[in-house]
Amino acid sequence: MVTSAMQVLIPVADGFEDMEVVISCDILRRAGLKVVLAGLDAGLVTGGCGLRLQPDALLADVVNVDIDIILLPGGNRGVQRLTKHQPLIQLLRERHRRGQIIAAICAAPGMLATHHLLDGRQVTAYPGILDPQSADYIYQESAVVVDGPLVTSRGPGTAMDFALTLVELLLGPEKRRETEAPLQRSTPETSPLSATMDNRASIT
Amino acid sequence: MVTSAMQVLIPVADGFEDMEVVISCDILRRAGLKVVLAGLDAGLVTGGCGLRLQPDALLADVVNVDIDIILLPGGNRGVQRLTKHQPLIQLLRERHRRGQIIAAICAAPGMLATHHLLDGRQVTAYPGILDPQSADYIYQESAVVVDGPLVTSRGPGTAMDFALTLVELLLGPEKRRETEAPLQRSTPETSPLSATMDNRASIT
Repeated sequence: MVTSAMQVLIPVADGFEDMEVVISCDILRRAGLKVVLAGLDAGLVTGGCGLRLQPDALLADVVNVDIDIILLPGGNRGVQRLTKHQPLIQLLRERHRRGQIIAAICAAPGMLATHHLLDGRQVTAYPGILDPQSADYIYQESAVVVDGPLVTSRGPGTAMDFALTLVELLLGPEKRRETEAPLQRSTPETSPLSATMDNRASIT
Repeated sequence: MVTSAMQVLIPVADGFEDMEVVISCDILRRAGLKVVLAGLDAGLVTGGCGLRLQPDALLADVVNVDIDIILLPGGNRGVQRLTKHQPLIQLLRERHRRGQIIAAICAAPGMLATHHLLDGRQVTAYPGILDPQSADYIYQESAVVVDGPLVTSRGPGTAMDFALTLVELLLGPEKRRETEAPLQRSTPETSPLSATMDNRASIT
């Protein structure tokens, strides 16, 4: 089991999905993780629905920092921009090679597919982003899919489950419960990890 | 039925609950409403979990603009700051007198209670914010409570239902479905309006 004070990198580019970035960031920070929102350029970044946020750092300055999770938010235009950022792609390839956690939601699993970083894994994504018939990966329609160090999810409506799954993966089910209870969710938690807790062993 | 291009005002002050502001803003904009995030002062505003966002306007400049919904986000420190903003309190009193929509989530219903703007209404809030035994209002534990022009909700985990309820209230159930479906929520919608659609008649 990994301990707290771990670092999460969330790259943000113009066109990011507003809710996916903020729900992930808020929940992971509530769980005690250090989250860095990293922009491609200096200055404000604008979400697909118009949210203007100030990143915490420049992506170029933090791609070589020790990172426990890299979390790729969706939003088509944002993902297209991230896909062209070579240092980010290099970081993702390196993490993939080392078996380190990569989390992607909505349109973001598409950029991982392009670079064959989903190969052989069970995955999900926003409808239409991945080919359900692909021979490269096993496509599922679950809200969140965890396969070893790869965590994928579907869209804004599954972002809370996605972030809570990452909390559970890194800090355990008790920390997930502790983070989830104060949110006052009206529906029961859905944990893709409860049946597959062995995943955690494989990523430490 | 009110038509589109309606305006929503979301006041934001340092300490706002990151998810509640952004989920509300994102969903209402997806539904075609014009949402203005209004800061108390010029410059960036920082959420309770550290999100730094750039408001679209100064609150002082927009309190006299025609507004269809005023939406008060939670986050204790943010709400404390909003409570001290006299033009905002005056706007809320005026809207209350006219029967115009006021929506409040999490800690925000507390500031409405202080100014007796919940009196006689069915309401909800974050646990501990309102007195469940109060003689002033009827407290409920539902995710979202709609009573005439007053819409209240519980916390970050109910923010999506809260925003979708506002979409339904203003633009009808079909627009709610159209906005909700692409979110890819894993759980069925919960609409407090389905049994109380007459509420809409009373606010137009």
